[in-house]
Amino acid sequence: MTSYIFEIIGTGMLILIGNGVVANLVLKGTKGADSGWIGISLAWGIAVFIGVFISADVSGAHLNPAVTIGLAAAGKFSWTLVPGYIIAQIFGAMVGNFLVWLTYKKQYDLTDDTDAVLATFSTAPAVRSYGWNVVTEAIGTFALVFGVFYIAGGALANEPISLGSLDALPVALLVMGIGFGLGGPTGYAINPARDLGPRIMHAILPLKNKGKSDWSYAWVPVLGPVIGALMAAGVFLLLN
Amino acid sequence: MTSYIFEIIGTGMLILIGNGVVANLVLKGTKGADSGWIGISLAWGIAVFIGVFISADVSGAHLNPAVTIGLAAAGKFSWTLVPGYIIAQIFGAMVGNFLVWLTYKKQYDLTDDTDAVLATFSTAPAVRSYGWNVVTEAIGTFALVFGVFYIAGGALANEPISLGSLDALPVALLVMGIGFGLGGPTGYAINPARDLGPRIMHAILPLKNKGKSDWSYAWVPVLGPVIGALMAAGVFLLLN
Amino acid sequence: MTSYIFEIIGTGMLILIGNGVVANLVLKGTKGADSGWIGISLAWGIAVFIGVFISADVSGAHLNPAVTIGLAAAGKFSWTLVPGYIIAQIFGAMVGNFLVWLTYKKQYDLTDDTDAVLATFSTAPAVRSYGWNVVTEAIGTFALVFGVFYIAGGALANEPISLGSLDALPVALLVMGIGFGLGGPTGYAINPARDLGPRIMHAILPLKNKGKSDWSYAWVPVLGPVIGALMAAGVFLLLN
Amino acid sequence: MTSYIFEIIGTGMLILIGNGVVANLVLKGTKGADSGWIGISLAWGIAVFIGVFISADVSGAHLNPAVTIGLAAAGKFSWTLVPGYIIAQIFGAMVGNFLVWLTYKKQYDLTDDTDAVLATFSTAPAVRSYGWNVVTEAIGTFALVFGVFYIAGGALANEPISLGSLDALPVALLVMGIGFGLGGPTGYAINPARDLGPRIMHAILPLKNKGKSDWSYAWVPVLGPVIGALMAAGVFLLLN
Repeated sequence: MTSYIFEIIGTGMLILIGNGVVANLVLKGTKGADSGWIGISLAWGIAVFIGVFISADVSGAHLNPAVTIGLAAAGKFSWTLVPGYIIAQIFGAMVGNFLVWLTYKKQYDLTDDTDAVLATFSTAPAVRSYGWNVVTEAIGTFALVFGVFYIAGGALANEPISLGSLDALPVALLVMGIGFGLGGPTGYAINPARDLGPRIMHAILPLKNKGKSDWSYAWVPVLGPVIGALMAAGVFLLLN
Repeated sequence: MTSYIFEIIGTGMLILIGNGVVANLVLKGTKGADSGWIGISLAWGIAVFIGVFISADVSGAHLNPAVTIGLAAAGKFSWTLVPGYIIAQIFGAMVGNFLVWLTYKKQYDLTDDTDAVLATFSTAPAVRSYGWNVVTEAIGTFALVFGVFYIAGGALANEPISLGSLDALPVALLVMGIGFGLGGPTGYAINPARDLGPRIMHAILPLKNKGKSDWSYAWVPVLGPVIGALMAAGVFLLLN
Repeated sequence: MTSYIFEIIGTGMLILIGNGVVANLVLKGTKGADSGWIGISLAWGIAVFIGVFISADVSGAHLNPAVTIGLAAAGKFSWTLVPGYIIAQIFGAMVGNFLVWLTYKKQYDLTDDTDAVLATFSTAPAVRSYGWNVVTEAIGTFALVFGVFYIAGGALANEPISLGSLDALPVALLVMGIGFGLGGPTGYAINPARDLGPRIMHAILPLKNKGKSDWSYAWVPVLGPVIGALMAAGVFLLLN
Repeated sequence: MTSYIFEIIGTGMLILIGNGVVANLVLKGTKGADSGWIGISLAWGIAVFIGVFISADVSGAHLNPAVTIGLAAAGKFSWTLVPGYIIAQIFGAMVGNFLVWLTYKKQYDLTDDTDAVLATFSTAPAVRSYGWNVVTEAIGTFALVFGVFYIAGGALANEPISLGSLDALPVALLVMGIGFGLGGPTGYAINPARDLGPRIMHAILPLKNKGKSDWSYAWVPVLGPVIGALMAAGVFLLLN
């Protein structure tokens, strides 16, 4: 039970900082509108650092269904805990985005552009092409989950793998690298909870300038990351 | 007594670097006018790193009344030391900002914009709305103080919590993340001493182009952080 | 054999992230077109971090024929392993760039500028001058390989030198510094595999807007780094 | 003798990377002209990291006469070694800047602006005012040397203080913070060797577009840092 709570807290901190930086960048009336992609990439990496650092020693700091599924598929995490972890991650992402909304309430009210408002919740592709968007998300998530296997350090087949707080910095750098390098086409969800939880929250919240929640794209940042996680688990098992 | 001195030194270094970067960005006749919000966020995080690194092993490196109050409210720091810590922090912030003024003396003289001059001392909201500004400061400070509980590592109820110099990097990254993610609406004081001390110094110093010190806003970056710190202590106690 | 596989994996991750950031910056229809040289320098450093972190404890994380040759020339790595390492590095770089192409497939299709497309594979000089371009690449690689000798820590003449995962951060910072400081004239290949492998891949792939692969320049980022590596080995031996 | 050699190597690497980034930023025909003050601040910090990391375990990584004098004034370093250290630092800075020139030879040839050329060697103030420029350099160097006392960790009065390679990261962050926060008015020499050595090299080298070496300013980045170092030693002694 404590593990679930810390998955909520860690994912909540991740989204609070991470989607906070998107809000700072795209909403009207903020001080950080010039942060650009450098700000996005650095801050999401830092957000991962904080979320992992706080939750790692209790829950193993998955904060991401792709990590949870990847570890389970590689035999490093119990499948019985997977549903609870995923629910906690999605719920934590919703709470985190709710706090982003409170933090930027006046800015949300000032912003007419409904696409900008949605961008502070969920990802959208630069060029819409469902198939290739899935490919992009799968490769980005492959890099993340494959990296996590080696950062968490359990190269032996019968040992569980779990991130500790000392792994927060390498994982954060990995996510920074994915943001800079692989985030260009789709905004790198690389995490189904990071996209789906906030999208649900976008649909729920009484936003002043709320457009569509773009549900037609919602499956891409779920399926892509799951495929990438399974690929990472497969390659990892091949190598061990 | 040594603890108070190191709170002064640590907070002084924090403000010297931190408000130095604001001066570099907004005053006329500097070399760093293009630093932008990325520079602000990175440099304030680095400023925290330096302040914490130098003072942590002596005073526990609060450097912030919100941290002091949050730790005390959680039973991790003695209430009898709280007033002295807060006075030291405010005084240190004043000294730090005095040094910023000396460092940028010619630039202060060149700068006509009195809002820019005030910005090198205290924070101001992007959109003025006292209630929501308090909310923003409270959430940012909640993230800071809640993070500090886990970074300092004392999860057991009867143990004091104190930052060590090895905690300087995680805390610095946390403040970088808060700057990028939550600093957009109010400029993230998240620290009553960081805002109040410099504001007093702004009122005192013989600045060439001195406008009003904006005292009507001064209570916001005091109350907001205190609320955030108490919320962090409350959640921490609930979880332990 | 495992060492060769991890040289492939590490170099693949290096190029996936590193040339990914170039793609994000120069192709049409991406989200990170404003990353600029700061993004390039930070992200290539992070790419090195990831590649080294994952492969170091197995292969020693050369990921670069210049490192392999430099270590061998200094008597710190067996010459018999050199050909296999170099082949693995070139092959890994090709695989990494193939994944960059998949990740940015739609963006490649949108981009008419064939120089931009080539830039996501191989380096090109800002001012073409083969002799001075070799000098630039040699000095940049000297800084890298000479730094690696001290980061890997084997100052004694008869001991092998090998990077471990804890060396990933210093090496990453070194490459960031080389990018910022020495990358301006030639785009800092400082690694024959990083330039040659992707150039071969550029020649092979069915790119929609494919120009020439600029083979007339291809020898520069091979010869320059080899000279720099030998210089670094020479100075290192002189000092030990 | 080995200490002197490693002061040369460390200061050489410092200037090679550090003035390399200035060259990348201000010369014509480079790829990094958009690096801006963020690039300057980050890269000089990284340059310090590399210089300190390589030389620390042999020479204690002063790389700066202000550090050498500050430590000696505080009784933490032998005065008999001071002249040799300072000569080594100045010579190392000259060698480093010679390599910058070779690296950017074609770019130097393309650049007509003689102030830009000089900027890749020595510092110049944004607003010329010798007295206040000394103040700025003194405060910046105070922050550096005072920080070094605590980072190197020798708080006991009769113990020598020496930086080790593990101190490279804190010192690098400190210099990044000084760049962002205190570098705006004078370009933060904060190191007499960093300014004087390259200025001598500027006078010597057969630069195509060479203007005056601005010797009238040369004493400022020597005197200011020495004052700052003595102030840091004084405060440190008061506190111990």
